[in-house]
Amino acid sequence: MPSIAIVQSMNDTLAASSGLRGPAETEKRDAIVAAAKDHFSLYGYSKTTVSDLAKAIGYSKGYIYKFFESKQAIGEAICTNCLAGVMGAVDAAVGDGTSATDKFRRLFKVITEQSAELFFEDRKLYDIAAVSAGECWPSSEKYLGEVAALLQQIILEGRESGEFERKTPLDETVRSIMHVMQPFMHPLMLEHNLDVLPDAPNEVASLVLRSLAP
Amino acid sequence: MPSIAIVQSMNDTLAASSGLRGPAETEKRDAIVAAAKDHFSLYGYSKTTVSDLAKAIGYSKGYIYKFFESKQAIGEAICTNCLAGVMGAVDAAVGDGTSATDKFRRLFKVITEQSAELFFEDRKLYDIAAVSAGECWPSSEKYLGEVAALLQQIILEGRESGEFERKTPLDETVRSIMHVMQPFMHPLMLEHNLDVLPDAPNEVASLVLRSLAP
Repeated sequence: MPSIAIVQSMNDTLAASSGLRGPAETEKRDAIVAAAKDHFSLYGYSKTTVSDLAKAIGYSKGYIYKFFESKQAIGEAICTNCLAGVMGAVDAAVGDGTSATDKFRRLFKVITEQSAELFFEDRKLYDIAAVSAGECWPSSEKYLGEVAALLQQIILEGRESGEFERKTPLDETVRSIMHVMQPFMHPLMLEHNLDVLPDAPNEVASLVLRSLAP
Repeated sequence: MPSIAIVQSMNDTLAASSGLRGPAETEKRDAIVAAAKDHFSLYGYSKTTVSDLAKAIGYSKGYIYKFFESKQAIGEAICTNCLAGVMGAVDAAVGDGTSATDKFRRLFKVITEQSAELFFEDRKLYDIAAVSAGECWPSSEKYLGEVAALLQQIILEGRESGEFERKTPLDETVRSIMHVMQPFMHPLMLEHNLDVLPDAPNEVASLVLRSLAP
């Protein structure tokens, strides 16, 4: 087990790398994130400055900067929470799958549904999602990495059970499937495709499964 | 052969439906489109009004409105020209293909290359392309229809030659392939994917061809 000092140092590094500042006073930080999320939901992310936000949610600008080094760091914390929610739902749905084929269908279906709900139940939060995906924030990149890892696990399972072909290099299979899922995962494209849900992602999932046939 | 009156009436209908106004004085209209394209290339489409444009290109606003009913109608004329260029290159490349498989690879490759060149050689024209695709202008829809028709022709050829499977309904095959090509055709997504060209579309083309295997 690592010593407490090492864990503390790891936490500090983690905090620094994610744009968080100061001691890990989780509750205070969470309160700022929750208030900022509500504020951005009403007034949008792009047009709000940290000063506007501070005034609106009743904290001083200095207090907010104790926890977050920039507006983006607050946006990333909101995104991280939302995307963790999506990933939780995806993990649960895939966990109930009865075969690699079934798991892949569940993965694609739940990601599309959850993303549509997340980005479009609240148009103003879509604003953060679009900026986050457009600028490849660490919160978006981490999420995409998790989806790719889960996808790879499903492909491997299908290759072992004989459901899927084994000739194509595994990394190419994963990469190309991540690309064809983009129109239904990326906020900018999903917005454009809302009127073809759920049929279009179902048909693309079928195309992918035909491509995976042994 | 249709009578001259019928042709005139067809031309009028065509002109009306594409937002063009007045007599078919092609040269004068083309001159406005060319000047507008140059102007938008420098100053962007979204932020330019018809008044700005008229002043800059040395025509009166009234003169421009004799030919185009709105700024969008001018934008559409520019898009139509650009997309006709892309489609011409695609048609030529596909025409040289030696099999349905080869033709599909050529279709996907040339569309991606031409779109990247069109949208990003001139960042300001990308502005029109993004608005056009985002708002589903007739110029974009017509182009997508032409790509889908060519794709369908290639699929049919491959089904007849035995290169491609025949079980999936033809319209579903075409629709789902159009969707997986979106990340490399749609200006908003292509911008996001510029750094994975040409490998990513090549890998997606391979995925599609595996899905088409009999």
